[in-house]
Amino acid sequence: MTSSKKKRQNNDFTPQWIQTPPLENSFRSVFKWGDREKFKNPSKGFLHVIKQELNLGDDDFTTMGTIGNRIVPDNMPVNLSESDLEALEKIVGRKNISTLTYDRLTYSKGKAMEDLLRLRKQTIKEICDVVVHPRHKADVQKIVSLCHDKSISIHVHGGGSSVTFGLDCPRGGVTLVLSTHMNKLVAFNEANQTITVEAGMMGPVYEDLLNNAPKKLGAEKSYTGGHFPQSFEFSSVGGWVVTLGSGQASSLYGDAGDLVISQEYVTPKGSFKTKDYPAAATGPKVNDIMKGSEGCFGVLVSLTMKVFESLPENARQFSFMFPDFESAVIAVKQISQGRFGMPSILRISDPEETDIAMQMYGLEGGIGDKFLGFRGMKKGKRCLVMGQSDGEKSFSANVFVQVKKICKQNRGLYLTGYPMAKWYKGRFSDPYMRDALNDYGVLIDTLECSVTWENLHSLHQKVRKVVKANPHTICMTHSSHFYAQGTNLYFIFIVKMPDVEAFRTYQQSIIDSIEVAGGSLSHHHGVGRMMAPWMERHLGREQMDILRAVKAHLDPRGIMNPGGLGL
Amino acid sequence: MTSSKKKRQNNDFTPQWIQTPPLENSFRSVFKWGDREKFKNPSKGFLHVIKQELNLGDDDFTTMGTIGNRIVPDNMPVNLSESDLEALEKIVGRKNISTLTYDRLTYSKGKAMEDLLRLRKQTIKEICDVVVHPRHKADVQKIVSLCHDKSISIHVHGGGSSVTFGLDCPRGGVTLVLSTHMNKLVAFNEANQTITVEAGMMGPVYEDLLNNAPKKLGAEKSYTGGHFPQSFEFSSVGGWVVTLGSGQASSLYGDAGDLVISQEYVTPKGSFKTKDYPAAATGPKVNDIMKGSEGCFGVLVSLTMKVFESLPENARQFSFMFPDFESAVIAVKQISQGRFGMPSILRISDPEETDIAMQMYGLEGGIGDKFLGFRGMKKGKRCLVMGQSDGEKSFSANVFVQVKKICKQNRGLYLTGYPMAKWYKGRFSDPYMRDALNDYGVLIDTLECSVTWENLHSLHQKVRKVVKANPHTICMTHSSHFYAQGTNLYFIFIVKMPDVEAFRTYQQSIIDSIEVAGGSLSHHHGVGRMMAPWMERHLGREQMDILRAVKAHLDPRGIMNPGGLGL
Repeated sequence: MTSSKKKRQNNDFTPQWIQTPPLENSFRSVFKWGDREKFKNPSKGFLHVIKQELNLGDDDFTTMGTIGNRIVPDNMPVNLSESDLEALEKIVGRKNISTLTYDRLTYSKGKAMEDLLRLRKQTIKEICDVVVHPRHKADVQKIVSLCHDKSISIHVHGGGSSVTFGLDCPRGGVTLVLSTHMNKLVAFNEANQTITVEAGMMGPVYEDLLNNAPKKLGAEKSYTGGHFPQSFEFSSVGGWVVTLGSGQASSLYGDAGDLVISQEYVTPKGSFKTKDYPAAATGPKVNDIMKGSEGCFGVLVSLTMKVFESLPENARQFSFMFPDFESAVIAVKQISQGRFGMPSILRISDPEETDIAMQMYGLEGGIGDKFLGFRGMKKGKRCLVMGQSDGEKSFSANVFVQVKKICKQNRGLYLTGYPMAKWYKGRFSDPYMRDALNDYGVLIDTLECSVTWENLHSLHQKVRKVVKANPHTICMTHSSHFYAQGTNLYFIFIVKMPDVEAFRTYQQSIIDSIEVAGGSLSHHHGVGRMMAPWMERHLGREQMDILRAVKAHLDPRGIMNPGGLGL
Repeated sequence: MTSSKKKRQNNDFTPQWIQTPPLENSFRSVFKWGDREKFKNPSKGFLHVIKQELNLGDDDFTTMGTIGNRIVPDNMPVNLSESDLEALEKIVGRKNISTLTYDRLTYSKGKAMEDLLRLRKQTIKEICDVVVHPRHKADVQKIVSLCHDKSISIHVHGGGSSVTFGLDCPRGGVTLVLSTHMNKLVAFNEANQTITVEAGMMGPVYEDLLNNAPKKLGAEKSYTGGHFPQSFEFSSVGGWVVTLGSGQASSLYGDAGDLVISQEYVTPKGSFKTKDYPAAATGPKVNDIMKGSEGCFGVLVSLTMKVFESLPENARQFSFMFPDFESAVIAVKQISQGRFGMPSILRISDPEETDIAMQMYGLEGGIGDKFLGFRGMKKGKRCLVMGQSDGEKSFSANVFVQVKKICKQNRGLYLTGYPMAKWYKGRFSDPYMRDALNDYGVLIDTLECSVTWENLHSLHQKVRKVVKANPHTICMTHSSHFYAQGTNLYFIFIVKMPDVEAFRTYQQSIIDSIEVAGGSLSHHHGVGRMMAPWMERHLGREQMDILRAVKAHLDPRGIMNPGGLGL
């Protein structure tokens, strides 16, 4: 079917998307993104591009592949002794522990494309032996102590949105779920503009507390955490920090690592809380050493984060079309180095992503499109830049003015705030589309890195070449986190691929090309087990050995998230 | 002499300040601040305050104490074998090695008050056995390897401005002087806005290169490093980072730890250069682990720093008088949390420092003073706030406008930019006054910490009480580095004290009070050997053990700056 040169495409054709929640306790309910009752299907325009680029026809969207809507059989052996299980149960109580295969699978799998593929095929691999829901730090201390004595592995589940195999349990063991109980407010300090929460508090709860601080926290003003990763709704505050995540507004507010003031850990070597000074010159900071440790050094139980006065009324949205990627990059570089403060959100799409965005939003071929063409913004070359300024009123207004000035100087055409508003509205819901496309065997995954300005174009071209080496592949790229020294590059690739192994090989070739082209192995997805094999080549033996030394000290028996970070 | 109640003070009296350079090879030439030909003596107003507050009269400024202008005898034994010395000489060449007592003393002593007191008394203590001037990284590698093999201690001398006994050599060994040869530009990258230099490059050379980048670096624009510690003229770029220094413009540009993108180290366990991405999510960052390591983990040989477009034409200076400290603190807190960007320089003086500043600038008692009194700015209560905005023109102008608005709302009286301009002019030369006062037995020293907003007043009062427990003592306090979460408190104390031991006991009581009152042990002076005894109590055993584990890994024989950081 997929061999014909030109596939049948009927404009009226709409695939039968699944619009019903997955069966309870099914594989599908494990892998489905987000809210079980929520769906988002590709728009006509988007589906059209996919069919066109992947050389697919309507026929390819008539029969679903494996959709994984089968009950997870409760048949995986538990490789922990009865006495160990009893000891764990004694710590947290009966209702906070489970050895059901479904539960173990749920909390041991993330949202990488490969996770989803395996779950669709009902493959159960590298899951924990027991799921434990600790109630508080004291529970975690007892569990870590027990597991250290018995050499039982410990994994931590925050929101479960890892796309780097961060939750896999290659040696089984315990998975601690922090979001069940350890999700509470610990302290809010309006004078210091900090909030302290347990690590398992989820993004929306956190932001809601801050936005409604006068009511909910007795504060004088409203606040924001300033951290909005795409996984915002399904990720935990602790998860943001241990994986070094970045939010969509990071260019102004900073990445998760910049937002965390102090952290409290339970490790096999004891518990500690790092100092919460705004700055200090008392040697290397343990707060820094623990950031990004991905559960390999200990369990993050609570953390203190910076908060910012919430001033949504001052936000200004903007978007521009540039005639080519080079001009757009020059503009965002000038913005990032402009010394007038940063927009909170700033995004730049390469030509392929721009064209697809135009189709997704139904803009291609219309009057607006013709106008763009007339103004020299040709399909296949033009690039969309959009964003939002925030902060104190005059500050935000000035950022808006400066952005406009720089964009115009670089041949950017102002498109009003409309495309940005459209993106903003759907910014957390795009991952839902993946499940819909997966149902018809169309795979979507992303890999990303940070890069210096100097190396941006070279890396972009080299990695695209590797992505495109697979025929009929979409490769959309954007930058969305900006620094005076560089930015990130985020590659979204859409392919039809028959099996997991082929996909894995393909994905590895892209990771490898990023590293070879001089990108960081990750800008904000973390390392997990996906990037782990490249870590030593990337950092060098000497630097890996430093991380290993910290690990060996805090976790002498190697029970904390074994294999994570490549340690 | 100092027992009488009211000392004779004659308005026309001026002490005989020393205005001649110290003898070559003298103790005085070791301890004298800065340029040997440069002097700055206390103004009449300042001397008047000192006499008044310390209960001194003109008689106390007629006879000098020990001024240390004696040649350093070349008589200190060298506790290294001939063969070790020969091996070192073979590495760097004859002219780059010295065992002269004078040289060893010069590079083993910093600028703490106690250093100066001991040198005046011609005490030679804890100096290295040999001074070595490595020419490049390869020299350092060979030296570190040799010293590791032979268990010889290694100390690193950058600019020599340590005020925390950071350069002492309790076990003798080698002191590496980086400023002699390892002071070169490695690379400048205008696209990425970074500069890479050898660690021994001194502040003025660094800033001059950047300011004159079009001429000296072939750049399109002029740049600034944005880092101006009081020791700027006599400190090295590497020293800024390994001690976690802060510049006077840190509120906008960041502290040294924020400015460093990557570092290259030579350690007993090998050499490595950390990655130079603007951000990354590849686990805990070795760049962070090495920041602030004060030579205890290895030798920093080169580093890459952020640079900023230089826009001095947009700077706006301001100063305000507030009726009391509380109002002034509220204002600077609102500025720091105002979400309009930060002034580059911001300073707030407590009432005692404010009154002394008024006298130093000859303003007390004049028409301006009367006007201030009339406006409710009473002596003993009023507080000076001053600073400067920088950056893109409209950004800087808006910061200025917002600062003015906030200060006025909090009863601050705008004093024009004059006091700020006056401070700005003398900002690097005040340390010269210390030597002049020391000649008459008046001691000046400083201790400092960071503190959250919430704890500022409590800490300020508690520490002042301890400083003032010594009768006839001046205690001036200011904050000069601002964050949304808090600031620093910098205590300057001026006392007449008979001997080193009494001073040490006094100083220790102040350090202890800072720690007990909930301040960090240091905001930007570093740890050295002065704060080292408090480190474990401050951080807790668990966190100190993490630093010890890194140390044990990189420096298994404990040769790198033994005793530094309390490791």
